[in-house]
Amino acid sequence: MHSTESSKKIEQLIADFQLPMSPSNLYEPIKYILSLGGKRVRPVVAMQVSDCLGIDGKAAEALAFSIELFHNFTLVHDDIMDKAYTRRGHATVHTKWNKNIGILSGDAMLIEVYKKLLSIKSPHTLALIERFNDVATLVCEGQQYDMDFESSETVTEKDYLEMIRLKTAVLLGFSMESAAVLIGDKALANKLFSIGQNIGISFQIKDDVLDAFPVNDEFGKTVGGDIYAAKKTILYINLLAACSEEDKARLLEIYGFESRSDEEVAEIRTMMVKYKIPQMVNKVALDYQHKVESEVNELDNEDLKIFLRSFSALLLSRTV
Amino acid sequence: MHSTESSKKIEQLIADFQLPMSPSNLYEPIKYILSLGGKRVRPVVAMQVSDCLGIDGKAAEALAFSIELFHNFTLVHDDIMDKAYTRRGHATVHTKWNKNIGILSGDAMLIEVYKKLLSIKSPHTLALIERFNDVATLVCEGQQYDMDFESSETVTEKDYLEMIRLKTAVLLGFSMESAAVLIGDKALANKLFSIGQNIGISFQIKDDVLDAFPVNDEFGKTVGGDIYAAKKTILYINLLAACSEEDKARLLEIYGFESRSDEEVAEIRTMMVKYKIPQMVNKVALDYQHKVESEVNELDNEDLKIFLRSFSALLLSRTV
Repeated sequence: MHSTESSKKIEQLIADFQLPMSPSNLYEPIKYILSLGGKRVRPVVAMQVSDCLGIDGKAAEALAFSIELFHNFTLVHDDIMDKAYTRRGHATVHTKWNKNIGILSGDAMLIEVYKKLLSIKSPHTLALIERFNDVATLVCEGQQYDMDFESSETVTEKDYLEMIRLKTAVLLGFSMESAAVLIGDKALANKLFSIGQNIGISFQIKDDVLDAFPVNDEFGKTVGGDIYAAKKTILYINLLAACSEEDKARLLEIYGFESRSDEEVAEIRTMMVKYKIPQMVNKVALDYQHKVESEVNELDNEDLKIFLRSFSALLLSRTV
Repeated sequence: MHSTESSKKIEQLIADFQLPMSPSNLYEPIKYILSLGGKRVRPVVAMQVSDCLGIDGKAAEALAFSIELFHNFTLVHDDIMDKAYTRRGHATVHTKWNKNIGILSGDAMLIEVYKKLLSIKSPHTLALIERFNDVATLVCEGQQYDMDFESSETVTEKDYLEMIRLKTAVLLGFSMESAAVLIGDKALANKLFSIGQNIGISFQIKDDVLDAFPVNDEFGKTVGGDIYAAKKTILYINLLAACSEEDKARLLEIYGFESRSDEEVAEIRTMMVKYKIPQMVNKVALDYQHKVESEVNELDNEDLKIFLRSFSALLLSRTV
């Protein structure tokens, strides 16, 4: 099966997802967030790996859908916590409805995730849910660390990498490994989890770099959005560690303002270039990418290798 | 096993509950909310019914604990939604920490519930979790209806009864039925669910009456707290339906104020007495209690009958 077929199948699953009509304030937000689109990276991965491992179509679909549902649950709750008013060009759930509805419909989504997982008829369903539980907990931990970092002055690159590993990479790891869990192949599951996790970390680092230094300008996209928002990205952390006392004082001053002007954002970007921070950080991403390459090379399943090579190349070659 | 033994066991399980140390902002709130006490009605019920049905001790403990954990998860999120600043005389989680921490630690608790349920080693574990999922969804629906009712002018007694059934009674039903699900006795599970649900509805109705009309004054407890908060209790709904146009206008006027004075609350209580609303509503509770009695009489298991009679008598005889 080709990735675009998987994508189509997932859109179909989302369109066909049945929920009760009432109470509409509980169920409409679930349909809404799922309808906002996105790249559907995680469910496509789960379906493609399932296909390589010969997982039954219905099981693969339920697995893929449950992962996308969980991801969207985290978006609904994270958007409340992060005070994000738009997502993919549309109002977030708590903006369109309200925070209470965001909290509660998120809760209902998480329960729906478990319903979907339980619908997978396999001798390994319990093992799959056990693994999912552990991963879901890690995702919560990552979000908590991310929030803790906002008020911390001592975040290191190591702390940052662990935070993005938990907050975003482990779920890509789970998307990779889950089909292997379903066929009871623990060794393969571990390998696939590590590959997914390393792709996820590499992707997130590149995401930070591209936010401040896009290779190609995407029409309408703000350059340096993370700097405007005073986010402690890996660029910021490395700049803070590398720069002179004078530049450090200025950086902390600008990051301490209520908001940052276009000139101030440009000033920080110039500082980053001066200390070669983008190159330094791209090197970190590349190290993870190399780990992925050697991990993929060690696999036995040729179909898996072909998929993983094309997938990681596609995901990690983005320029905006 | 006696109820007090079950209670002790549950306090022990809560004290022994192991969670990671870090991130402390994720895990401390979970320990905190569990430490605030409460009657532990649901886990005691689950353990007592498990005992009557010969469920293995470890499984009964995990079952009871998972239900208490879920109940506490709903408290953390509901307290945010209801803007409740204290619970059991202590600050609520979102007051002691903040709303974001309340949302996220609640999410982590819900995942912990599934971990505990999965730790039950039984051929019926999947069936148990499936049933739990359905009940957990109903609880979310109940909370949504409760919130919807705040801004609705047309809530009927029937709507109200369905709301409290979902919001509170089904979880007591699940506490009753879960041990029967674990031994694969579906017929008994259905009967026990109905018994627990009817006890829960009856309890909640009495709770509404006792809030405005306590039989014995409990030191320090506010009489008419629901009226101060302009809650649409079953008393209010029945008063609105029964009273004269003149009284109705006054009732709606007082409920429309930003807040209500002692005199205004007293005025509404007097109105309720005038229209014999407490008696009318107590009759509704008594109808559910009678249903419970006949449902219990139809059971075959003598141990269960003895437990259920004493439990419902104890729970429904409270006067404050």
